[in-house]
Amino acid sequence: MLRIPLTQETLNSRDLEELAATRRRCAQWIIECTTLAGSGHPGGSLSSLDFLMLIYAMANHDPANPRRMDRDRIVISHGHVSPGVYAVLADAGYFDPTRMVVEFRRAGALFSGHVESVVPGVEWSTGNLGQGLSAGCGMALASRLRGGGARAIVCMGDGEQQKGQIGEARRFAVKYGLHNLCAVVDVNGLQIGGETSKIMPQDIAANWRGDGWNVIETDGHDLPELHRALRRALTVPAGSAPTAVLARTVMGKGVPFMENKAKFHGSAASHEQAAEAFAHLGVENRLAKLAEQRKQHKPSPREHHYFEAPAAVLNPGTPRDYDASASTDCRSAYGAALDDLARLNNLPGVPPRVIGFSCDLQGSVKMDAFEKTSPAAFYEAGIQEHHTAVCAGALSREGHAVFFSTFGVFAIAESYNQQRLNAINGARLKVCMTHVGLDVGEDGPTHQNIDYVGLASGMLDFHLFVPADPNQTDRAVRHMASSSRPEILAMGRSKVPVLTRENGAAAYAGDWRFVPGQADVLREGRDVAIIAMGCMVCRALEAWKLLRGKGIHARVINMASVIPLDRGAVLAAARETRAIITYEDHNIHTGLGALTANALAEAGISTRFLKMGVTRFGSSGVPDELFAEQGLSPADLANAAIKLLG
Amino acid sequence: MLRIPLTQETLNSRDLEELAATRRRCAQWIIECTTLAGSGHPGGSLSSLDFLMLIYAMANHDPANPRRMDRDRIVISHGHVSPGVYAVLADAGYFDPTRMVVEFRRAGALFSGHVESVVPGVEWSTGNLGQGLSAGCGMALASRLRGGGARAIVCMGDGEQQKGQIGEARRFAVKYGLHNLCAVVDVNGLQIGGETSKIMPQDIAANWRGDGWNVIETDGHDLPELHRALRRALTVPAGSAPTAVLARTVMGKGVPFMENKAKFHGSAASHEQAAEAFAHLGVENRLAKLAEQRKQHKPSPREHHYFEAPAAVLNPGTPRDYDASASTDCRSAYGAALDDLARLNNLPGVPPRVIGFSCDLQGSVKMDAFEKTSPAAFYEAGIQEHHTAVCAGALSREGHAVFFSTFGVFAIAESYNQQRLNAINGARLKVCMTHVGLDVGEDGPTHQNIDYVGLASGMLDFHLFVPADPNQTDRAVRHMASSSRPEILAMGRSKVPVLTRENGAAAYAGDWRFVPGQADVLREGRDVAIIAMGCMVCRALEAWKLLRGKGIHARVINMASVIPLDRGAVLAAARETRAIITYEDHNIHTGLGALTANALAEAGISTRFLKMGVTRFGSSGVPDELFAEQGLSPADLANAAIKLLG
Repeated sequence: MLRIPLTQETLNSRDLEELAATRRRCAQWIIECTTLAGSGHPGGSLSSLDFLMLIYAMANHDPANPRRMDRDRIVISHGHVSPGVYAVLADAGYFDPTRMVVEFRRAGALFSGHVESVVPGVEWSTGNLGQGLSAGCGMALASRLRGGGARAIVCMGDGEQQKGQIGEARRFAVKYGLHNLCAVVDVNGLQIGGETSKIMPQDIAANWRGDGWNVIETDGHDLPELHRALRRALTVPAGSAPTAVLARTVMGKGVPFMENKAKFHGSAASHEQAAEAFAHLGVENRLAKLAEQRKQHKPSPREHHYFEAPAAVLNPGTPRDYDASASTDCRSAYGAALDDLARLNNLPGVPPRVIGFSCDLQGSVKMDAFEKTSPAAFYEAGIQEHHTAVCAGALSREGHAVFFSTFGVFAIAESYNQQRLNAINGARLKVCMTHVGLDVGEDGPTHQNIDYVGLASGMLDFHLFVPADPNQTDRAVRHMASSSRPEILAMGRSKVPVLTRENGAAAYAGDWRFVPGQADVLREGRDVAIIAMGCMVCRALEAWKLLRGKGIHARVINMASVIPLDRGAVLAAARETRAIITYEDHNIHTGLGALTANALAEAGISTRFLKMGVTRFGSSGVPDELFAEQGLSPADLANAAIKLLG
Repeated sequence: MLRIPLTQETLNSRDLEELAATRRRCAQWIIECTTLAGSGHPGGSLSSLDFLMLIYAMANHDPANPRRMDRDRIVISHGHVSPGVYAVLADAGYFDPTRMVVEFRRAGALFSGHVESVVPGVEWSTGNLGQGLSAGCGMALASRLRGGGARAIVCMGDGEQQKGQIGEARRFAVKYGLHNLCAVVDVNGLQIGGETSKIMPQDIAANWRGDGWNVIETDGHDLPELHRALRRALTVPAGSAPTAVLARTVMGKGVPFMENKAKFHGSAASHEQAAEAFAHLGVENRLAKLAEQRKQHKPSPREHHYFEAPAAVLNPGTPRDYDASASTDCRSAYGAALDDLARLNNLPGVPPRVIGFSCDLQGSVKMDAFEKTSPAAFYEAGIQEHHTAVCAGALSREGHAVFFSTFGVFAIAESYNQQRLNAINGARLKVCMTHVGLDVGEDGPTHQNIDYVGLASGMLDFHLFVPADPNQTDRAVRHMASSSRPEILAMGRSKVPVLTRENGAAAYAGDWRFVPGQADVLREGRDVAIIAMGCMVCRALEAWKLLRGKGIHARVINMASVIPLDRGAVLAAARETRAIITYEDHNIHTGLGALTANALAEAGISTRFLKMGVTRFGSSGVPDELFAEQGLSPADLANAAIKLLG
């Protein structure tokens, strides 16, 4: 493929000839793959094609080694232009173009309708618009942390500019001086519904400039002009604001019947139309042959749904012990453990391995010590959770252990879809969120994150831990440091006692280790099993005491590993006790109780079973009163156990 | 309270005297309530206080009748300044100030840490930042639809300006010419983490201007200047862009030790500090007395967690019948039914009762006919789902039946938190989402909405219906038209056959009516029960046929009402058949299978039970192949049934 060094100031005639030939080939493949699939997005693929060709010619990347760490990251934020991207990647030698054409939009194949990072050369799975610039920020940060010169180049659509998250990413990029980031916008003036100016009038240049970016407006098909603009955007000196290239283009460019037709944003040409396109392009019509190939060919099954990123496995250090007299909360224990990780793993003279992100809640989420220890590894991203979730997710794929902390309601409810897409992208993010449940207290219903178990369950890849005291929190954080999975740690706001065994010894101190999928039986008993998590475990122990006073022996199970659940502990409880109660600061529909119910039903085991948890948003007050309002006090639990046992 | 008519051009000296007295009273209550609660946000309350006083003096509202339809809607987007808002509302006569001070941040009371719409005079529960302007857009639209002159006035913080959703709302407001909307921003330069200019540098004025708003920058404590600015913002003529007032203020204004201290963004003065504040204000220190009252006083329990909005109950019209030869998809049936509703309920000369919102997917979600029938009732909000969810939600509380349609992944995953807050606010939104499940087909994993049951469950108030064919869809839509609940309708993308009874008659045509909480037994059988929803029901019928060929009699249950679930049908299946299989185009962790498992476990019933559903994100291809990839074909189902029966 053509390579144009950044030192080259202008395109020469040989470049232009070669680009014209490339364009013809790529346009052919774009038409072929969409027409054969009977769906897809040829229009935007053709409007973006010129800048895609130039970017892949100018950027540093290696088709023979698609994941080389020093490569420029090219993020396709408008993921529906996959035919154009696949065509340019095929032309660059990443894969066989015919394979792409034959496998496009076929079950099990790599070549999805929206670009996916399973495809060699694709950095980030997109399709949900407005997220690519945030991912690019994370990649540009990673490059700077490594000390390399790699750039992040984010290609976007113009309809996409309507998404608010882009403004958040722009501001973050300016705050952190990401001159090695640039954006290229395909301004073809059309989106699915019609003219962008009618669907949602917007002054795109004013939006970018308003957030402090340099803007270059250019013709997106005049190759010399476009090259000059891209070259400027790719060579912004340190200290300058990043640059956005707004490329005026024509939807369907180069295929006359497609030009400026919104219809071809999201639909393929018919076979007859395709024939007309090939004739216009002066290329062979291979549709019949390719259709036959497509029919015969069985795509080899893809093994991963995301690419394997380099893992950061940290030295977890020595656990801290909190003795039974300690008076603290889990989030402070998290902050202390995170600080330990920074001291052990972020060493002078080498790039920091542990990174922290906060969204204007640094003090509440206890990241102050971390910032003090490792200021260059801490990012304060403002009240911009959508952006931050994606940016942190992308950075977590670059060999750093990234801890993103904010309140549960912002980390996983406000940013649910961003976290879901992080998981799809194989991000290894550590979401350490605080203030979950009614335990958020006086902040009231809008801040009550009583749905995080269900949300985490829905994202499929994240594990979820809900520690019950500071010792367990400390050990959960150290486990996360030595794991490369995406994981969520959920913590309340309030102080909790250090939990003890019956003999009074701290339950999770000393040599105790956190193991995912492993529950802890804090109290043994054969009458009823109480399964609890987080801040409810200490309350379950109070109920245990009340019950013991009445001669009832409860087993108290601390299910700190919620995903994966310790099904063995549930089934043992069903076999060995007479009733099971789940007890949680979470809604009863999708929380610990629901997961427990599933374990029971799937095992075909019946037992007396009761879910105690949140059934409606609470009011604003101290947690114990909020729990009492919903019948969740220790006394309520004890009474419910007595009643359940009959 | 002081009233300043909008005809009055400048404040006179009596106004100024009265405002000074009001300010002193309100500042006292702000300090009192936060110090007594030991938490809260006095700093922003004091910086916003002057514009809050003026707005409530200038706006049209009636403390004696807080929900009068012609009132101006004052939305407090920075909901943490609740002490300031409550103080001004108390001063206006909405409730007794001492009651507020005594009940602030107490479990069960009205006076939450963040403003809630249960409080007389509060329009929208906030606290999660960045959403108020969207709610204001919905209210301003409602006013225009009614033909009244009511305004929507949105008060915001400056840290909050970082949220991207605000840009989406700004653009929507300009597109739809909402001159009766205005924004007032408290630019105190501080947020929780410190100086706004350090947390996230931002040119707020440029952001507003860039999206086409008029901006007035003013001193937020110079009352005559502030009054002039607000007056201009409140009297923007039709055809002009809406106005944002950026009010430069001082955090903690009027209480010297609080001024310009970020600490007092989110923490209360000590009793000693409060005494100092009262001395400075020249007011009595009533803390001891109030603390005693607070101790004695038991707040009367709140009955609702949201305010009862006027309901729009439509004429549902006559159901359409699709006969067994029809070849269509559920979303087309939705579009046709919605069009019927528009014809019946949006009558010439009166405000439309049925409103539609789309996010650039009007054709895909089948709203074209609706728009043609009722163009003035259709809003194309662009690729701005966060904004649209809130805007549509707010409009749904104003006596209109609002249908918001986009793909499932955008309607409920991307906008999860917005929908959750809609529910908290008592919105009666109808979320009619399409392209759910692997049935989205070639769009690939980023578009696979395989978590909507879990998400809907987490929002607590929404009902969720997943119809299985066009007839059932039509009837579900007509049910929604005659219900005032928040409801979600989930539809796939693909065509589905019209479902029939064993005798060949269309199952859901004619007199059949959709009833929430009521499943339909499509095929009777006593060997195994297959519980399915949506596009899997027709596949379950194929499996039924395969099983019958082997002498196995399956009961096929169409669980179109997923929330509420028909528990009776589940328990009957457990009693009357030998095994239950749930079969769904949704993840198995939080979907129909999980809800069924819960029903079984909670009833203490054990049976052979198998959940068949999505276990990982699929690839990009035709739905039948995506189902086969995950072992979800009808043949897989039949085989699983045989195996389960042993």
